[in-house]
Amino acid sequence: MGGSIGLAALARRSCERVVGIGRDAARLAAAADLGAVTEVTTDLANGVKDVDLVVICTPSAQVANIARQVQAAAERPVIITDVASTKRQIIEDLGPDIVAGMRFVGSHPLCGSHLTGVEAAEPNLFRHQKIIVTPAQPRPLSVEVKDIVREVVFFWKALSGIPIEMSAEEHDQALAATSHTPHVIASLLAASTPCEVLSLVASGWLDTTRVAAGSVEIWRDILHQNRSMVVNSLKGFDSSLQKFITALESEDWDQVAKILEDGKNRRDAVGS
Amino acid sequence: MGGSIGLAALARRSCERVVGIGRDAARLAAAADLGAVTEVTTDLANGVKDVDLVVICTPSAQVANIARQVQAAAERPVIITDVASTKRQIIEDLGPDIVAGMRFVGSHPLCGSHLTGVEAAEPNLFRHQKIIVTPAQPRPLSVEVKDIVREVVFFWKALSGIPIEMSAEEHDQALAATSHTPHVIASLLAASTPCEVLSLVASGWLDTTRVAAGSVEIWRDILHQNRSMVVNSLKGFDSSLQKFITALESEDWDQVAKILEDGKNRRDAVGS
Repeated sequence: MGGSIGLAALARRSCERVVGIGRDAARLAAAADLGAVTEVTTDLANGVKDVDLVVICTPSAQVANIARQVQAAAERPVIITDVASTKRQIIEDLGPDIVAGMRFVGSHPLCGSHLTGVEAAEPNLFRHQKIIVTPAQPRPLSVEVKDIVREVVFFWKALSGIPIEMSAEEHDQALAATSHTPHVIASLLAASTPCEVLSLVASGWLDTTRVAAGSVEIWRDILHQNRSMVVNSLKGFDSSLQKFITALESEDWDQVAKILEDGKNRRDAVGS
Repeated sequence: MGGSIGLAALARRSCERVVGIGRDAARLAAAADLGAVTEVTTDLANGVKDVDLVVICTPSAQVANIARQVQAAAERPVIITDVASTKRQIIEDLGPDIVAGMRFVGSHPLCGSHLTGVEAAEPNLFRHQKIIVTPAQPRPLSVEVKDIVREVVFFWKALSGIPIEMSAEEHDQALAATSHTPHVIASLLAASTPCEVLSLVASGWLDTTRVAAGSVEIWRDILHQNRSMVVNSLKGFDSSLQKFITALESEDWDQVAKILEDGKNRRDAVGS
């Protein structure tokens, strides 16, 4: 994701400098070769000391710690955001830091792929894509938080994205339904398909289980961060499933058709 | 599916005549215009009277009845097959007819799309695609049944397909896991996504729920025909789901990772 942000920002001239910061010098060199960054460093404190905005591109669990390192190293006011898939825990962890003056607002671009590494970087990744921006404070937002949100929204618009503002709580609730539950269901579906019939799968199985190929480490982290909302959402799904099994067992074909129709209507409403 | 069979057979010169039989003269005319058939008729008895092989392209529930009409009208020995998604019930319904001499073997091409109508016909639809062929008798097969299977296998090979022989029971068991259960799960996932967050779905949700856009009528028919095996498969899925919810609730992250890993391994084993 970091590589795509750099490519998108430089291609659109939304800034002059993009500092690539990471632990792996070879990967940073590859990012520089691709033109995704204008300079690189493995020294976080040195890399962030005179920048205007930092985008932390790590799994959720690491965001708060890195944000604190950025804040400690910055020599002038810096805006900090991230791209992780869960938001509530991060905002909660950073609560005291934000009260103490850290200018943090969460971001979650609803795009990307299961591919990782700078080789998969794509300058148009954010084009016409929704990016959820989650301010840290409860509403109504203070004037200062509004200013930080405005800057972060401006940043994503400059990359041709479509920023949408909501609370971290609203984000995690929505994503539990639209992303985390589908991921768990796809994993369980793949895991529960007997090995001896895997040679007979066709496009339906392939589509339905596609996301199960995602990184186990990243998804365990997401489920850890959004545990309670995912559990609620999975329980809701489970009660729909049990209702459907009952309808099949009792041969209630009207009820079966009604549920299939409801699923079709929502799927058709969204498009391909 | 009928249109694709006609286009594929004529393009590969696997036969000289393809008679399109249907109830809707306009759709038959469209099939003739596309070159998917060499002649058309709305009169089933007249259409099948002097052909070698009939492929019934209807939902499962109608196959047995149409097969009987074909058998009654044929003026010389005719081989009958179909393309429906379930096989056991058809073979069971036709049992007495097969004993009385009907030369029926089931087929199920594991390809196609949710598009219907002759406009979606595609001459390479079967190319390198698996087509399950299900003989009617218990093993060992009689010499006569083997001959019919050989003809049907030859027919699909001529369309560049990859025929695979198995019993109707094995077919329905396998497809419950690889197709029918994924369809139900995708429908339930779409149906249980709150409308107010549908605007926030991304590629994960879109892939996982794609098949939910399929025809309600066709899928109700499939679930009707394969009810007991689908119920068993859904119950197996439900117990996996409940185990996963328990692992999340008890924060058993090793177990969570183990299940995600298992899903990823099976998904990766199949490819894209």
